[in-house]
Amino acid sequence: MNAPLPAHLLPEVQLRDVPDALIAALKERFGAQCSTALAVREQHGRDESAFTTVPPPSAVVFAESTQDVADAVKLAAAHKVPVIPFGVGSSLEGHLLAVQGGISIDVSRMNRVLAVHPEDLTVTVQPGVTRKAVNEAVKSDGLFFPIDPGADASIGGMAATRASGTNAVRYGTMRENVLALEVVTARGDIIRTGTRAKKSSAGYDLTRLMVGSEGTLGIITEVSLKLYPLPEAISAATCSFPSIEAAVRTTIQIIQMGIPIARCELLDGKTVGMVNAHSKLSLREEPMLLMEFHGSPASVKEQAEMVQELAADMGGQAFEWATTPEDRTRLWTARHNAYFAAIQSKPGCRAISTDTCVPISRLADCLLDSVAEADASGLPYFLVGHVGDGNFHFGYLIDPDNAEERRIAEALNHQLVGRALALEGTCTGEHGVGLHKMDFLRTEAGDGAIDMMRTLKQALDPDNIMNPGKIFAG
Amino acid sequence: MNAPLPAHLLPEVQLRDVPDALIAALKERFGAQCSTALAVREQHGRDESAFTTVPPPSAVVFAESTQDVADAVKLAAAHKVPVIPFGVGSSLEGHLLAVQGGISIDVSRMNRVLAVHPEDLTVTVQPGVTRKAVNEAVKSDGLFFPIDPGADASIGGMAATRASGTNAVRYGTMRENVLALEVVTARGDIIRTGTRAKKSSAGYDLTRLMVGSEGTLGIITEVSLKLYPLPEAISAATCSFPSIEAAVRTTIQIIQMGIPIARCELLDGKTVGMVNAHSKLSLREEPMLLMEFHGSPASVKEQAEMVQELAADMGGQAFEWATTPEDRTRLWTARHNAYFAAIQSKPGCRAISTDTCVPISRLADCLLDSVAEADASGLPYFLVGHVGDGNFHFGYLIDPDNAEERRIAEALNHQLVGRALALEGTCTGEHGVGLHKMDFLRTEAGDGAIDMMRTLKQALDPDNIMNPGKIFAG
Repeated sequence: MNAPLPAHLLPEVQLRDVPDALIAALKERFGAQCSTALAVREQHGRDESAFTTVPPPSAVVFAESTQDVADAVKLAAAHKVPVIPFGVGSSLEGHLLAVQGGISIDVSRMNRVLAVHPEDLTVTVQPGVTRKAVNEAVKSDGLFFPIDPGADASIGGMAATRASGTNAVRYGTMRENVLALEVVTARGDIIRTGTRAKKSSAGYDLTRLMVGSEGTLGIITEVSLKLYPLPEAISAATCSFPSIEAAVRTTIQIIQMGIPIARCELLDGKTVGMVNAHSKLSLREEPMLLMEFHGSPASVKEQAEMVQELAADMGGQAFEWATTPEDRTRLWTARHNAYFAAIQSKPGCRAISTDTCVPISRLADCLLDSVAEADASGLPYFLVGHVGDGNFHFGYLIDPDNAEERRIAEALNHQLVGRALALEGTCTGEHGVGLHKMDFLRTEAGDGAIDMMRTLKQALDPDNIMNPGKIFAG
Repeated sequence: MNAPLPAHLLPEVQLRDVPDALIAALKERFGAQCSTALAVREQHGRDESAFTTVPPPSAVVFAESTQDVADAVKLAAAHKVPVIPFGVGSSLEGHLLAVQGGISIDVSRMNRVLAVHPEDLTVTVQPGVTRKAVNEAVKSDGLFFPIDPGADASIGGMAATRASGTNAVRYGTMRENVLALEVVTARGDIIRTGTRAKKSSAGYDLTRLMVGSEGTLGIITEVSLKLYPLPEAISAATCSFPSIEAAVRTTIQIIQMGIPIARCELLDGKTVGMVNAHSKLSLREEPMLLMEFHGSPASVKEQAEMVQELAADMGGQAFEWATTPEDRTRLWTARHNAYFAAIQSKPGCRAISTDTCVPISRLADCLLDSVAEADASGLPYFLVGHVGDGNFHFGYLIDPDNAEERRIAEALNHQLVGRALALEGTCTGEHGVGLHKMDFLRTEAGDGAIDMMRTLKQALDPDNIMNPGKIFAG
């Protein structure tokens, strides 16, 4: 049994009635696609967040089509029962927890790539397709989809949380890379937002209203994405630095000079150690930038030379290059597994992840003070950063049964967010608000903007059935 | 006096009462900043669109601060009187016409650059700052702001219409380049959307809800924009082609190969002739691509060589390079003046502008059939295109007193939009909906999405005072 969260961080659980009549109607409509088995419900009532368990949803509908989603929502809406969309369950912020009860709509079986348009650099997929599956589907056309959160997340979930990852510094986030959506509304209607045209001024940007809305305004049932030609040349490199500060200052210069670096990731020395242990690598256990360059052979060479020069000025050394696809994949798999490497370094632990993002010039200020605080706390942690974007994650590794560790971790997070907001940054660069950052969001956005968000939510979902209790309480 | 529009294109004029008490209150609060002079009102009751004149607003408030805007909105809201924001008046779609009466809030005096952050590649400006003024302000830091609609538009207006221009193919549109906003709501409250962080997952994307909302959800009073380092090398080139099709097919290949071209503009032969006459140039009067390459000297050379090869395969010839800043400026000024060059080619005419945008693979299909139709109509026209984005503009040159010419132009536009929508495109790539494209928007977005837009509008502006009658009727 987990120790209780500090009161102000406890998910506010206010279960709403899920009438038997709804369950019966779901069973009738969906047959074996609707499960009320405890194990299935429990699997859909948690995610990768460090929250104490709340009761699972009352039923799980395995949608196989947009019409399935629409029908499930209509049935739930008739009873004013909450619906929570579920992709692969990789949220770090409690998005999937049924804090007001309700039913889970699992879209993982909606996993078809509907149309690849290589000539337009677009692909249209169902929401349960994962990012790796997208890349498999378009590889033979010489294309790729760059957005890569650590987990092999579903495209629907990535759109709903406005996800990004290591390539965002060059290619943007889901905000920039979703062209159009199909969405099931709170009434169970099916609407389309946007077209496959690259740009448009046609009315309100419903696409970007839905991207990042965390399932609270509608359920995403189809996504059209931008693709990119696989670069002619790709080169990855690691570079070790005498200090985190030196690595960060190198990053700031790379960005300010406009070098079109594709990936620019920071790992601190201890995290490199965790990655080494987990992935059987022998990287130098010092602060490290892990970089990648995309372009023509000449352009990649030029970018790499400029970065080497900047790094050398900051004491960077031991530049190591990975140019074969195998070496690169090994390196980036190790980076993507940093979270799991860290979790395994302390058996039984959970990670409280931070996700601040600040303007690049403020990165050193924001990061270094937080490192000092984390070191002083004595809590083990990992530190990885999409530093080219000014975004980084501490993962404070806590024993979930230890209330004191949780308190310390939350206090560190609180201090870090306060610092980031004071530096004109955001409390969440890519994970979303979920349950964890509602207070931070209010501080960041201000009462006026929160009121506007609430007004939009009430207008589109007057009975508050779409993933209620996320983004803002109630 | 202009000839009447066809009935279905007449702006729906339903004047609402503007009580004397409101005018008195505005005069009291704003003194000389509030004008009811007919000439001032008339200047604020029209734009660059081809609409017949509707009655001008009852008063114009020259706002000098966000508080001025908020106070003007509060006074108008108390009387449920429409407010219409005004920047430089360069809308092509009737955005500024007081179709329901009301007052104009002119923000052109809010023209201060509030903060340049060269180290973060951002700038924060008041809404009346024009795009050229932004560039003047950041040039000495080695930075530039790429979005360039033809006119020297205000940043507030560009954000409100989700504008783009010739650089969008590489740098994106206002959608991608606005980081954060300050907005006065329909209640006269002042809110902030977003931060200066490069990315964020913090709640609903109010920034992008406001970008493109055409003044119907709030009035933009401050804009934070992304900037870019001035490229180390810039090279512009013109290339003539034996046919429009050859130019378009070259463009499609450039994009599909992922060449990071910065600008890729099409002019047809007749439009080149108009530009020559207006700007005293001697460009070959054949279909032409006008291109620009940004990057390191090596990268620019590489891009240019690849494009030359592609163009040559399609019969492109007479590549002419402009590498000095003066030559480039002359060339692009000529391109930006194409609209005015065309207007001057037929004294007294107005242009009915189209603005469709389609996926790049559909560009030839969409464009060539429309050229054939326009030629068959006998109406003079210009044709320019941001073809790298799949976006192009016909400007049918009509005598505004000639109802038959107007009918022909509207029919051509109607056929073109129908074709673009069938090809998965949009009715407006960058001009906005305004008064002109409401019917097209409904066809494009569908009833469900329009209902959602209306629901959002009603929720944020229950008395329908924010630029009413634009985007959707009523």
